[in-house]
Amino acid sequence: MTSPRRAPGGFPVVGIIGGGQLARMCAGPAAELGVTLSVLAEADDASAALVVPSSPVGDHTEAEEVHAFAQHCDVVTFDHEHVPPHVLDLLVAEGVELHPHPAALRFAQDKLAMRERLTGLGVPCPRWVRTDTAADVTAFGDAVGWPVVAKTPRGGYDGKGVRVVADAGELTAWLERAASEGSGLLLEERVSFRRELAVLVARSPSGQAAAWPVVETVQTDGICTEVIAPAPGLDAGLSADAVHAALRVAGELDVTGVLAVELFEVEAVDGRASFVVNELAMRPHNSGHWSMDGAVTGQFEQHLRAVLDLPLGSPRPHDRWTVMANVLGGELPDLYPAYRHVMARDPEAKVHMYGKGVRPGRKIGHVNISGDDLADLRERAAHAAGYIQGVVTE
Amino acid sequence: MTSPRRAPGGFPVVGIIGGGQLARMCAGPAAELGVTLSVLAEADDASAALVVPSSPVGDHTEAEEVHAFAQHCDVVTFDHEHVPPHVLDLLVAEGVELHPHPAALRFAQDKLAMRERLTGLGVPCPRWVRTDTAADVTAFGDAVGWPVVAKTPRGGYDGKGVRVVADAGELTAWLERAASEGSGLLLEERVSFRRELAVLVARSPSGQAAAWPVVETVQTDGICTEVIAPAPGLDAGLSADAVHAALRVAGELDVTGVLAVELFEVEAVDGRASFVVNELAMRPHNSGHWSMDGAVTGQFEQHLRAVLDLPLGSPRPHDRWTVMANVLGGELPDLYPAYRHVMARDPEAKVHMYGKGVRPGRKIGHVNISGDDLADLRERAAHAAGYIQGVVTE
Repeated sequence: MTSPRRAPGGFPVVGIIGGGQLARMCAGPAAELGVTLSVLAEADDASAALVVPSSPVGDHTEAEEVHAFAQHCDVVTFDHEHVPPHVLDLLVAEGVELHPHPAALRFAQDKLAMRERLTGLGVPCPRWVRTDTAADVTAFGDAVGWPVVAKTPRGGYDGKGVRVVADAGELTAWLERAASEGSGLLLEERVSFRRELAVLVARSPSGQAAAWPVVETVQTDGICTEVIAPAPGLDAGLSADAVHAALRVAGELDVTGVLAVELFEVEAVDGRASFVVNELAMRPHNSGHWSMDGAVTGQFEQHLRAVLDLPLGSPRPHDRWTVMANVLGGELPDLYPAYRHVMARDPEAKVHMYGKGVRPGRKIGHVNISGDDLADLRERAAHAAGYIQGVVTE
Repeated sequence: MTSPRRAPGGFPVVGIIGGGQLARMCAGPAAELGVTLSVLAEADDASAALVVPSSPVGDHTEAEEVHAFAQHCDVVTFDHEHVPPHVLDLLVAEGVELHPHPAALRFAQDKLAMRERLTGLGVPCPRWVRTDTAADVTAFGDAVGWPVVAKTPRGGYDGKGVRVVADAGELTAWLERAASEGSGLLLEERVSFRRELAVLVARSPSGQAAAWPVVETVQTDGICTEVIAPAPGLDAGLSADAVHAALRVAGELDVTGVLAVELFEVEAVDGRASFVVNELAMRPHNSGHWSMDGAVTGQFEQHLRAVLDLPLGSPRPHDRWTVMANVLGGELPDLYPAYRHVMARDPEAKVHMYGKGVRPGRKIGHVNISGDDLADLRERAAHAAGYIQGVVTE
């Protein structure tokens, strides 16, 4: 595997395992910062491989391939959570500087471990239990109320690995697989939430941390489709509590890089606005895409700064509101004419495309728009994203 | 020459002749827009070649090499003005879509042609003359007052190719060379200016145009060291006149892409605040680096949109003021510790490094800082740039 070409002046090389859009969106900030990227890509036409000169193709589940890749990097970080523990363990044993460290990453890879740890820290969670049998499922559902939410501890994303079930019989196949893998299933109460929120923070190995404002996220069919930054009308106490919880989780788990904490805003408890934690991600996250255009320091730049233990940048928003709308793949394979139309309609729309082929429902881009009039921004962002997708036609 | 890997969805390839920092700074916006870049680089470690996967090495003065490069691109644009006319002519004859077109680019390549054309358009210029002999020089200097400014019509940049002379004898060598090349020299009166300004506009082949606010530029030893956006205390009439002149020049000369018009602000004439045009550049320009962080659409994104005939983006500034300070090479070859220090001192500083080796006086990066307090921003930007350069040590 050839080494990436280093810039002169002592600037480091950051390796990213995985060549998806999150790695791709690090490319601009890396070029600006002057640091070199290298990406271990799934294929030579992976989203990031199209824009990063050093993008060897390799399998992130093969320890030797990942280790060979890491030899040429000063630090190594991740585009996704799917690198298996045995690969991470080998890298650590060989002295590779991984951010986040596997001891932290574990809590983003394994939802049972996450629930156990957060509960131990006193961070509000939905009621949950580890289950191995249909009898456990029935007992939990009878206790917290049906339906309940079942999650595979590992491997889920964008709604995959999550099911809402009305009785234990719906989980027969999952329970059999969990039993054969010895993994158990995570059961959670189905939270009656007002809305979904997310807090993004970044933390460096030195312990410096920075938080962006709490955002509101809107999911459609389990996929994030819209983010409003900051979350409109958010109770100031809830905002402070949420940021505090995210910074505390980052510190207690020794997270390095960007940490996304997805929350449900729930009914006030004793008059105090409240939340429970839904999920954790230890990498740049869809809920932070707004920051690329809406903040002094975007999440991809901040992630690079954090994993390099560089001082963190200001997360100050540029505008009162920024709205992000995801562009999902639709029926149109030829996106360029629609993209052109969107730019003509709205000179303030920041259209980001990921260089990915269209498949229905696949995240292929997003649009950010900033300004003062939230209702107007939401309409414009949704229109732009929907037009490129092909579901809005005028 | 291998072709760049195209993104799916119908997105085009933009070729850039020259691999300097201007081409490099297109890389982030291109990745965000989803368009593919290809760079004809001077060397495989050129500034842009470090961050653009398709960066064949070639000689921009060799018509066949440039033509082979252009075959793989939908449009071709420039990092510099140094592609010779015979090369441009071949490309046009072969049907390559060049932006700007050579018929426009000529006025940025040849300062005598520029003075003649602008004067024809009635755009204010310093008094000037084409000179071929020492007698011409003496006559001009005696008429407008000594010293005068002598410029080689072609090939100058960053103060090179420009001399301030007190008598014709100082130009003997230049006149001999100009005579042998048949090029003549440009002589201009030395303008007594209040300050230097610049207007950046972008124009697309369809004729759409957009202008950023007029900025103040500060030169040190002929090299731009600081830019203040917008120019503080600028007379509103002068601002409107300057933007109008730049848009008119762009239209009349059929410029496509970014056009930078450098101005001298001079004493008011009949009570009307006034300027004369100093130079033109038809590409992203140092006076527009502030827009990367300070405006909704930065100049590199806008240049790509313009040359692709995509609708232009909003040039709206994010903040009241943005100050840009250039980082010049100093005596420190190892920049990274100083860069780190600068980030720690100022979380709002946007530090851009070009991946270039240090040579004293070479432009190797820049720093942008935005906010409300101009004096404070200027101090901080100058400190950051000076610290990395090594001329500020505390």
